[in-house]
Amino acid sequence: MHFQTFTKNYKKSFEKYLTNLVQDKSQTAIEEAMRYSLEAGGKRLRPLILIALVNAFDKDVLQAYPAAAALEMIHTYSLIHDDLPAMDDDDLRRGKPTSHIKFTEATAILAGDALLTKAFEVVTEGELSDKLKLALVRELAQASGHEGMVGGQQADMDGENKDLTVEELASIHSRKTGMLIRFAFRAAGILSEVDKNTLSDLDTIADKVGIAYQIRDDILDVSSTEEELGKRVGADAKHGKSTYPALLGLERAQELFAEHLDEALALNEAINNRISNFDKELLESFIQSLKLN
Amino acid sequence: MHFQTFTKNYKKSFEKYLTNLVQDKSQTAIEEAMRYSLEAGGKRLRPLILIALVNAFDKDVLQAYPAAAALEMIHTYSLIHDDLPAMDDDDLRRGKPTSHIKFTEATAILAGDALLTKAFEVVTEGELSDKLKLALVRELAQASGHEGMVGGQQADMDGENKDLTVEELASIHSRKTGMLIRFAFRAAGILSEVDKNTLSDLDTIADKVGIAYQIRDDILDVSSTEEELGKRVGADAKHGKSTYPALLGLERAQELFAEHLDEALALNEAINNRISNFDKELLESFIQSLKLN
Repeated sequence: MHFQTFTKNYKKSFEKYLTNLVQDKSQTAIEEAMRYSLEAGGKRLRPLILIALVNAFDKDVLQAYPAAAALEMIHTYSLIHDDLPAMDDDDLRRGKPTSHIKFTEATAILAGDALLTKAFEVVTEGELSDKLKLALVRELAQASGHEGMVGGQQADMDGENKDLTVEELASIHSRKTGMLIRFAFRAAGILSEVDKNTLSDLDTIADKVGIAYQIRDDILDVSSTEEELGKRVGADAKHGKSTYPALLGLERAQELFAEHLDEALALNEAINNRISNFDKELLESFIQSLKLN
Repeated sequence: MHFQTFTKNYKKSFEKYLTNLVQDKSQTAIEEAMRYSLEAGGKRLRPLILIALVNAFDKDVLQAYPAAAALEMIHTYSLIHDDLPAMDDDDLRRGKPTSHIKFTEATAILAGDALLTKAFEVVTEGELSDKLKLALVRELAQASGHEGMVGGQQADMDGENKDLTVEELASIHSRKTGMLIRFAFRAAGILSEVDKNTLSDLDTIADKVGIAYQIRDDILDVSSTEEELGKRVGADAKHGKSTYPALLGLERAQELFAEHLDEALALNEAINNRISNFDKELLESFIQSLKLN
């Protein structure tokens, strides 16, 4: 199935599942703030990749919903905290006021904490074996913690206004944004109980896609309008952040972007050659959809 | 065994286990900030209650270390975020500069996020069955999330400068501080695979101790010096917070405090009458130690 068709079929159903997980029980602003950010939309790329891959491996997609929702909660909390005045100080996200603008700074901090916490409750839900659930808890914690996403955010701040090499930049991004993307791929593999080689290929595809995605973001930040992106542009330069176009030039950044996507496509073929009932079109069409016009 | 003796025997060993869980791998300030707050000390009451109770049920205390460390990480992260300028804006904690004073506000937010995340990795460690580990993951998430501690923090802020009833105050505290104390008791029961009635008694003891602990805190905030407490006093009045002494008068607050401890002691007896190899002295001496001179 084409990734766009899959997304069309499953995005609403997943979003309904996701927002229903946060009920208004505490009679405080906290659940309102959690839902506000969860419902702010976005492409839901990470959870939809996870769910699509489980479908590509011919497994029940509903089994993937809890892990996918947990992943989206972690991603959402990281955006809330990233937007705070003490961090990136952004007032606009997905075309809407950020959480600390809409609510208060304190509520934004707490709503982020609550989404992060809820993710670990949600990932234990569903019909999987205890063993698989525990593996997902551990993968999620490692991907999003101090050796993963949060460590990457700190490294990203430490790197502001410094001259970084491309390797240093890649290392920061592999943690800051790459680890959650990798979780999407690995969790799908773990859920589908794939063989070791396939899990390793999924890892590498995730890395390639993650770096490509970051290069793409950097390119769009210097070549798009606010209306197209739904967020402030030129933010990288404002924060003195190293970017691929700044380090390599726009043309070489575009080449590197294309190379990473090609490598990911090749590994998708490798999985397809190994597993007979694998639907290679899902990942192939997703990777193709990332390409810049 | 007397709780003080137990603490003397196990506090250092637990603290060593706790701080060893955070290694300096990411080459950023984040692990330094995590360890700074983990090592800031304090009485480690919550984890030591958990470990002591497992000992009281005649089980291997080492089995309790991961859950106890996870609990202390959650408690520690909540203090870091609570101290932030947008929250309670405290510059002193346990006699040392708070995280955002020692580091930066951004690093304090991220170190809190990282400790919260790490807690869910740590609680899956050790030799317990997958089933018990998963139960602990769920209990920890529910105790510390939007229906537990974080929701309580929001409710606490919402209640500032408002006239609360004693019931409303109790409801806020039962979430803000009570739920983590309850986790210490429940986790010990779950780990020790106690019967349903005992788990329910542990729940109630935790509630009684939790409320007593809060009344005690409120009383000390109006009747101690900074040197005695190692933190700023009079903070409740400064933030316009309702307290038990303010609502009930100091004398009635002291009575209520004593009543809760007596009820907890009675339930400890009930467990002792039900379980033959239960060491009732551990909890009894802990509850006695809370009493004010």
